[in-house]
Amino acid sequence: MILSEQDRKHFIRTLTPGGRLQTHRGILYHDDLIDQPLGGKVKTHLGFSYHLLLPTTEELIRYLKRSSQIIFPKDSGYLILRLGIKPGTRVIEAGTGSGGFCLALATFVGDSGHVYSYDNRLDMQELARLNIERAGLLHRVTFVIRDVEEGFDEEDVDALFLDMLSPWDMLDQAHAALRGSGVLGCLVPTVNQLSHMIGSLTAHPGFGFVEAEELILRQYKTVPARVRPEDRIVGHTGYMIFARAVVPAQEDTVDSVDNSNDLDET
Amino acid sequence: MILSEQDRKHFIRTLTPGGRLQTHRGILYHDDLIDQPLGGKVKTHLGFSYHLLLPTTEELIRYLKRSSQIIFPKDSGYLILRLGIKPGTRVIEAGTGSGGFCLALATFVGDSGHVYSYDNRLDMQELARLNIERAGLLHRVTFVIRDVEEGFDEEDVDALFLDMLSPWDMLDQAHAALRGSGVLGCLVPTVNQLSHMIGSLTAHPGFGFVEAEELILRQYKTVPARVRPEDRIVGHTGYMIFARAVVPAQEDTVDSVDNSNDLDET
Amino acid sequence: MILSEQDRKHFIRTLTPGGRLQTHRGILYHDDLIDQPLGGKVKTHLGFSYHLLLPTTEELIRYLKRSSQIIFPKDSGYLILRLGIKPGTRVIEAGTGSGGFCLALATFVGDSGHVYSYDNRLDMQELARLNIERAGLLHRVTFVIRDVEEGFDEEDVDALFLDMLSPWDMLDQAHAALRGSGVLGCLVPTVNQLSHMIGSLTAHPGFGFVEAEELILRQYKTVPARVRPEDRIVGHTGYMIFARAVVPAQEDTVDSVDNSNDLDET
Amino acid sequence: MILSEQDRKHFIRTLTPGGRLQTHRGILYHDDLIDQPLGGKVKTHLGFSYHLLLPTTEELIRYLKRSSQIIFPKDSGYLILRLGIKPGTRVIEAGTGSGGFCLALATFVGDSGHVYSYDNRLDMQELARLNIERAGLLHRVTFVIRDVEEGFDEEDVDALFLDMLSPWDMLDQAHAALRGSGVLGCLVPTVNQLSHMIGSLTAHPGFGFVEAEELILRQYKTVPARVRPEDRIVGHTGYMIFARAVVPAQEDTVDSVDNSNDLDET
Repeated sequence: MILSEQDRKHFIRTLTPGGRLQTHRGILYHDDLIDQPLGGKVKTHLGFSYHLLLPTTEELIRYLKRSSQIIFPKDSGYLILRLGIKPGTRVIEAGTGSGGFCLALATFVGDSGHVYSYDNRLDMQELARLNIERAGLLHRVTFVIRDVEEGFDEEDVDALFLDMLSPWDMLDQAHAALRGSGVLGCLVPTVNQLSHMIGSLTAHPGFGFVEAEELILRQYKTVPARVRPEDRIVGHTGYMIFARAVVPAQEDTVDSVDNSNDLDET
Repeated sequence: MILSEQDRKHFIRTLTPGGRLQTHRGILYHDDLIDQPLGGKVKTHLGFSYHLLLPTTEELIRYLKRSSQIIFPKDSGYLILRLGIKPGTRVIEAGTGSGGFCLALATFVGDSGHVYSYDNRLDMQELARLNIERAGLLHRVTFVIRDVEEGFDEEDVDALFLDMLSPWDMLDQAHAALRGSGVLGCLVPTVNQLSHMIGSLTAHPGFGFVEAEELILRQYKTVPARVRPEDRIVGHTGYMIFARAVVPAQEDTVDSVDNSNDLDET
Repeated sequence: MILSEQDRKHFIRTLTPGGRLQTHRGILYHDDLIDQPLGGKVKTHLGFSYHLLLPTTEELIRYLKRSSQIIFPKDSGYLILRLGIKPGTRVIEAGTGSGGFCLALATFVGDSGHVYSYDNRLDMQELARLNIERAGLLHRVTFVIRDVEEGFDEEDVDALFLDMLSPWDMLDQAHAALRGSGVLGCLVPTVNQLSHMIGSLTAHPGFGFVEAEELILRQYKTVPARVRPEDRIVGHTGYMIFARAVVPAQEDTVDSVDNSNDLDET
Repeated sequence: MILSEQDRKHFIRTLTPGGRLQTHRGILYHDDLIDQPLGGKVKTHLGFSYHLLLPTTEELIRYLKRSSQIIFPKDSGYLILRLGIKPGTRVIEAGTGSGGFCLALATFVGDSGHVYSYDNRLDMQELARLNIERAGLLHRVTFVIRDVEEGFDEEDVDALFLDMLSPWDMLDQAHAALRGSGVLGCLVPTVNQLSHMIGSLTAHPGFGFVEAEELILRQYKTVPARVRPEDRIVGHTGYMIFARAVVPAQEDTVDSVDNSNDLDET
């Protein structure tokens, strides 16, 4: 449940009998909220009012408990479409981070799909697990603690997302885990990484259709007489790079065999 | 199925025994493709090769048959998150258009959710129906031909999306259809509409938490030695405006009740 | 003179015998600086080093003393080109503000051109005058305190720039001051103003060739191994609108003449 | 002179007695235009009307005869400010290209400044010379044909602009030509070049205060009832990189002196 007020303070809480929420403007008692209609106003013991709202996936991600940079909703939504995520999809992500994108993946794969989330840091993954559990999605996610360069346990996954410093080190492992035509995606913040990843993907025989993109989000002030873009915005989060797993060309193998057969037919 | 070649020609086809696909570089016979591995190369009768790929939702939208402007994937993905769409969601859209966003909605609501899509033009909706049918999602969508100002048949829907010239004319009808705290979204191309819609939403007692945003997508050339943003990009699609359905303030109701009680004090 | 250090603290000072500059890292004595080579390092009494640099016009504007929002260099440079400013140009601006754009105008009109700067607030213009004086450009600027709706004293100016809340109120006055084909420019922050100004300019018989634009500046971090856009940027300053003064169509004049002749002198 | 019509066809011509201009809507005779007021309408022999306008610097650049990519006005204006160009400035550019930026530089340095423009291609520079001559600015520009890696003839110039494939090859030469605290600027299209140039500048003892930026220009449709950004825009021209010439740190010199003193151990 999210409680939100016009001044944009948000609290995301699961309502429990006897629970209480201490806001900066007084206390709200969960028992008073449980029977209230969604979208209605509730008041703190000091008389300030909040709205009772059900959070969207975008809000769950935006207000996640985090100990690291998360993938912003502007990027998450597009990544979901680009990676081909939908109910039933099996997808790997490395690494887990605070679990923001994991939450988006787990939401959209539904009960018939599954998310395999790898990270080498236990503390990070514990936080992510907590975030996913609170969203009621824990049954859709398998968490694995591992240095991902050792590879993935799954095969034939539909999509694989790399959120790590050197995604180019993972191309063989990613190709081994992806089904043919599956989508590889990654997000990197610097142009150095963008350039390096494009180079590695282009040179790898197991990937094709390399594309790179970035999204810039502009928020607008919504005062009716003075509508205008916000003065200060997030200018950059990262570059998204995509490729498709392809079957490495047969000819190359055949060719080399042919060549080795060239010897003296006489 | 999508057949795609490095020069970025795409064909999205459902493979059927005996079928054939005429490309600009020769013919591909469906029977030859059915047993091929995904991600592998196939050759036309002229010897040109294509890759056999399974399309992502992003590709299904991008290469949709269309007779009107569609909502771009960059916006669709973010709208899905912002509208709170997920497996199980019930959502209304008005109007249907060519069905691009309908396809995204139908994908993500899963079999447990549903899309109600309204439009006043039969020809448009027939095209959308065809696009949704091809994607195998027809059972998740109810199409309605209607001038939407007459209102919607559904109640307590989780989200409602307006893609029309004068979305401000639909606020009462939208509020009647949405559950409390449900999300209203719309997309408008001009600043005149942006300003008008923000004004109407702000003034309407049944909506709160008005926000407006736009997304700019930049594609990058992926030639490894010369990575750079594309010279020409789509500079604008539309402004996205969001609000939440709230219970109108009690005072208003009380006031009207008071007024109606003013009679017979005699 | 500008003194600048790698951590980007700047001080713009005119060096005077006996002067001293108190930085947050110690004192610099002007007498020690006067003979130093430009681009060289100088040290404070605490041993911290600064570079001695000559400021560019961009830096003079960026580090101006200000009591109001200034026009950013990203916009100033483009406005200079678009307004057709060059050595010899006569240009009016209304209002003066803190004098940032006035400084740019005064720089580029040279000694053979002139800037006429109007504002209705004496305190603002005093600050601007100080800023222009420090830049040594006072002889190129005439300051006028006036409610600009009363009109301008000049005629046949080459360009006229409006930086005010309701620039559409000034179109007749602007047309009277501009030479034929002269450029009118303005900068407004909101879409409401953008839309209003475009409407007024389009309807005015004395202006043609209306254009509107905005510029987004992205700074990049310059750490060689991690080049990337800054996380947070200025997302918006304002919309620039331009038009050309044209001779109103003959027909209109003829009409008014006809009307004024209606009285039969018999 | 520029002749312009509401449908945005432009012709930039110097009016000469007896001259004629063939437009796609009929002929205009220069003799008929010479006495017309600026901003007024003139008619072709077919009765179509054009406006007689004096071109701005922005228009001179935009409609330049070109055989290569030019630097766009959005970048030129900002570069002028950032490079510290103003009446009196001495500036070097390498290479000349079609002369678009040369025209901007020559405009703003005035008669008291000067532009030294280097290129290794005679054909390009001949075109640039023609463009500068038409703008009446030839006396402010010295053209030099040279492979710029051989260095520049000038010393103590205020600013130096590099528009070439490998600007990092020119840092020693640039430092030798610039006065202390002078501004080095360059424009490069790819992230590879951006990253390379930042690395080279950062490592060079003769440069400091490295900054990198890019500008995105959005044009708006100016139909009053439907104001909106243009659908398709220029998404990228180039990255601008700036640095200041500094006096290399004393220590370095001392070190080399020490080393050169290592002889005569006998």
